[in-house]
Amino acid sequence: MPSVTPLSAYEDVQDTFAADVKGIANQQNLGNVFTASCRYLSKLKTVELRSLVSNKEYFAFADGKKVSRAVNKRLFLREPTEWDVFCRAIAAKKAQDLDAETITRIVYSVAVSFFCYIDLTKDGDQKTPGTFFEYLIGHLFAWRLDVNPKTRLAVLNLDMAATLPTDFVFDLGPNRAKFHLPIKVSTRERVIQVWAHQRVLDGVYGTGRFIGTPVILTETKTDKKKREVIEICLPDQWRIYQMHIAQLKRIYYLDVPAAYSKLNDVFPALIVKPFGHFFAEADTLPT
Amino acid sequence: MPSVTPLSAYEDVQDTFAADVKGIANQQNLGNVFTASCRYLSKLKTVELRSLVSNKEYFAFADGKKVSRAVNKRLFLREPTEWDVFCRAIAAKKAQDLDAETITRIVYSVAVSFFCYIDLTKDGDQKTPGTFFEYLIGHLFAWRLDVNPKTRLAVLNLDMAATLPTDFVFDLGPNRAKFHLPIKVSTRERVIQVWAHQRVLDGVYGTGRFIGTPVILTETKTDKKKREVIEICLPDQWRIYQMHIAQLKRIYYLDVPAAYSKLNDVFPALIVKPFGHFFAEADTLPT
Repeated sequence: MPSVTPLSAYEDVQDTFAADVKGIANQQNLGNVFTASCRYLSKLKTVELRSLVSNKEYFAFADGKKVSRAVNKRLFLREPTEWDVFCRAIAAKKAQDLDAETITRIVYSVAVSFFCYIDLTKDGDQKTPGTFFEYLIGHLFAWRLDVNPKTRLAVLNLDMAATLPTDFVFDLGPNRAKFHLPIKVSTRERVIQVWAHQRVLDGVYGTGRFIGTPVILTETKTDKKKREVIEICLPDQWRIYQMHIAQLKRIYYLDVPAAYSKLNDVFPALIVKPFGHFFAEADTLPT
Repeated sequence: MPSVTPLSAYEDVQDTFAADVKGIANQQNLGNVFTASCRYLSKLKTVELRSLVSNKEYFAFADGKKVSRAVNKRLFLREPTEWDVFCRAIAAKKAQDLDAETITRIVYSVAVSFFCYIDLTKDGDQKTPGTFFEYLIGHLFAWRLDVNPKTRLAVLNLDMAATLPTDFVFDLGPNRAKFHLPIKVSTRERVIQVWAHQRVLDGVYGTGRFIGTPVILTETKTDKKKREVIEICLPDQWRIYQMHIAQLKRIYYLDVPAAYSKLNDVFPALIVKPFGHFFAEADTLPT
């Protein structure tokens, strides 16, 4: 389908998403977005960025005067066929044949290739990338857990009948695990919301009933004039939140920030991993 | 000083603010912003807005095709001299001679007159109004409590020496009250941050050590095409936060939303009041 643009493929995802989040239609439409985005980017030049993050290299796509967000060189694949390999592996329950690193790179590339397309064709559009990332991660979570998410939960109380709007939550059934899945392109100072929502779920349904597993793309920030990339991290604040607000089980990143990966080694337990690990460990997370 | 513009007066506040938050220089400079904003607005036309909020009327200022945010008709005063009356009353510790309603109207007018100036002279500038509102409310709190605020607190812990960035906090001294003052032009879904920060303070310093008293301007939203004003409120979510995240002592508004004032009558205790009441009740809030 050579006439498919990344945006029209994205609109197909919008149309199909909610009807069956884990369904094959979403899988195919997400693959179409990746294919169309790779085709668009293949005609563009790239510019090197100066990475101030140790052991990471970044570049950007450029179209005329416009420059895209930073792209992690090691993580980015321009191979649309990789999505199909990944999909077949998941479908055959063989995701464990693909190592976590490979899965992380594929999912990172699907997201970032579309984001770069939006950066270069729209002005200041933050909403479309954010929504696309929710579709992508929401679908993958649903597919792996084989259950569709909810975004509202009933709150039982003595004298009010309210529903609580939430990020995606996945209920695997009576006496089985429930997942709380916030999805963010980046967090900065807004991250405290993730812990606060977990606290509300703990309070309303019992501590530990929902397993908190936020998925975040990256914390990079690009200075477009200087063409420099930094990561904005607040690790000491995260430790305070994990001690005093609520406990998150995992924090998954596609591009794990250096400062946060160090949290795996200190108190409190705050496990930050590349998202690809979710596929191998999903069944053991509740234990 | 006829050459003073609202923006140059605002820049004076920026220059003086941090050196002595409760100081007389801030009081005078804030008054200059109000005077200059009233002078600017006096030359403009107003347009009626259709209020979908019961018992409230709103209008907007217009300059050519540009239309300002919604202004509450009952609360808005165009009398720069009112600021001086208010300042003299506070200085003479006679704020109780001014009723809470009058104080609320004066503070509302200082904020909103400057916001309308920014709406009509800048494009999409949300930051300047937000910062000005922090200056205005931060100064008034400091002045009334007679102590300057901090925005960082040391976190004592077994194996980390971190500081916690906070909203304004006011420490009245050993064994006396401490206030936690988040300041927002409006909150929408970001309000959960206020409860989460209170939870962190409760966890680190002991429950009840900091009295949480956020000050918010309004929750109105204007549909500029239809010229309609609504209030966006989430009262059931507020009740859940107050039960499950932390307890706020007061939530002060300049323009109290109808749906939130009803929270005064139901469980849990969640007291929402016009900001003017703070000046009379500040000394008794800790009890």
